[in-house]
Amino acid sequence: MKKIVVALGGNALQEAGKPATAEAQLEVVEKTAEHIADIIDKGYQVVVAHGNGPQVGRIVLASEAAASVTPAMPFDVCGAMSQGYIGYHIQQGLSKVLRNRGINKEVATVVTQVVVDQNDPKFQNPSKPIGPFYTEDEAKAIAAEKGYVMKEDAGRGWRRVVASPMPVEIVELDAVKCLVDNGFVVVSVGGGGIPVIRNAKGDLEGTAAVIDKDLASEKLAEDLDADALVILTAVEKVSINYNKPNQKDLDTLTVDEAKQYIAEGHFAPGSMLPKVEAAIKFVESKKGRKSIITSLDKAVEALEGKAGTVVC
Amino acid sequence: MKKIVVALGGNALQEAGKPATAEAQLEVVEKTAEHIADIIDKGYQVVVAHGNGPQVGRIVLASEAAASVTPAMPFDVCGAMSQGYIGYHIQQGLSKVLRNRGINKEVATVVTQVVVDQNDPKFQNPSKPIGPFYTEDEAKAIAAEKGYVMKEDAGRGWRRVVASPMPVEIVELDAVKCLVDNGFVVVSVGGGGIPVIRNAKGDLEGTAAVIDKDLASEKLAEDLDADALVILTAVEKVSINYNKPNQKDLDTLTVDEAKQYIAEGHFAPGSMLPKVEAAIKFVESKKGRKSIITSLDKAVEALEGKAGTVVC
Repeated sequence: MKKIVVALGGNALQEAGKPATAEAQLEVVEKTAEHIADIIDKGYQVVVAHGNGPQVGRIVLASEAAASVTPAMPFDVCGAMSQGYIGYHIQQGLSKVLRNRGINKEVATVVTQVVVDQNDPKFQNPSKPIGPFYTEDEAKAIAAEKGYVMKEDAGRGWRRVVASPMPVEIVELDAVKCLVDNGFVVVSVGGGGIPVIRNAKGDLEGTAAVIDKDLASEKLAEDLDADALVILTAVEKVSINYNKPNQKDLDTLTVDEAKQYIAEGHFAPGSMLPKVEAAIKFVESKKGRKSIITSLDKAVEALEGKAGTVVC
Repeated sequence: MKKIVVALGGNALQEAGKPATAEAQLEVVEKTAEHIADIIDKGYQVVVAHGNGPQVGRIVLASEAAASVTPAMPFDVCGAMSQGYIGYHIQQGLSKVLRNRGINKEVATVVTQVVVDQNDPKFQNPSKPIGPFYTEDEAKAIAAEKGYVMKEDAGRGWRRVVASPMPVEIVELDAVKCLVDNGFVVVSVGGGGIPVIRNAKGDLEGTAAVIDKDLASEKLAEDLDADALVILTAVEKVSINYNKPNQKDLDTLTVDEAKQYIAEGHFAPGSMLPKVEAAIKFVESKKGRKSIITSLDKAVEALEGKAGTVVC
């Protein structure tokens, strides 16, 4: 049976413009679950990874807003909370769909830490905004008090920024592997994983960082020796000249082409770029591996080579 | 190898009187981890369950306090978040201790839903207070708006109360079993599990309820066919006439004695009573099973019959 890691984008969990309630999320997750079930139905062994940007952002927001009544939680803990929240919804939604289709598969979420290198150069230039907006004065006071790096965010106010270092090691990999090998649908590396560093003594410590979920999914796919990495997003295909009159949607993309398009600046940082980078990394990691970038509803067709963009 | 379920009490996660920060919790968890490692060191296969009262209370508190900036999360989701939070700390703390001792065991948290019966009579009389305090007027407005049951809490104000129904089914049991059978230290049924009901269609739905963590641990111990259920709390032994001049600490307690003492009102509801009830239930579930109630630092001695209270 082919093993695949499916990385869910933000649109698989929440609908843009809708209120960010848990109830609304669960509705979207149930629709997403139908598409994941379609993949499982085709006989693929599926491991689910997912983003957590909006969710962890709101957990941080609530935590900071309530700091006068209960201590605010550090960012790694907020990440762990978001894995519990989203994992629970995926478990519940996907189990329901599988059961209704008579597919006898169980879904389990493994709370997953991902190690980053504390010497990763990205830590020198944190760029990922998290949590609430502040005025310049508030931001400077917070920076002085807590040592956070605060940056002005596109005229909208000041926000804390954290680094986005590369994933180095998936701490709970063996547990994930054990469940996958025994037929479970496993949810792991949610939000790119809970960011931890390995200190001088070799112990793990939480850190404030956002690990890109596509790169964490790629690492997971490598470590599980998956056959394919399927990155699901809001568009069916990767395009060059995106949103321009000469936009060209790509059915296939070789690693060499992909690198050239990256050099030419075709892919937006923080959006299509990390997906293409993760896709390349997986294909280059071992002969025969392929990556697919497509939309949720085209995933099955894309796995059959009839839709999406295949990177190989 | 003997398999045991260890149910951690609130004191294993947070120290009374200390600030409820994540940093303070992690410190306590690392001390707790030493005791759990002692048990593992003796050759026991350990499954860890834990409470979440203060943590989920604060997550609800933060969520409600921040409701003007981001939608408040329902109680089941707050429970899922607390499992992520606490499970992450236990994974990190226990892995560190095990590694430092040269014990090659990995720790994994499975996000765990626990089914309760929506016809459980406890739903008719919710009694477990959760979240912030309100004035009477605020409480009545909330009751009218959200349908919550609000009760006056010992002169301190009004709070939401939820039911504490019996655990019926551990949804992710097979995943827990798989990991336990493959040598992992598994953290499960945190906070008694994420409370869900099975609706008329057979689908799971989150509900607002607090499942007693000792009863959920008991259910887990039964379902895993554990040899012992170890309930850890702040005192070394179960006592009758507790805190009276004629207090008597018990080394052993038969099921019949335990039932008699319960009838005589020796054990405080919400404190020692559910522990003794869970202990009895496990012993009665199959011949040869024993329950132990003791403090963290006496757990190893208690397993050797040299400390604590053994219920058999």
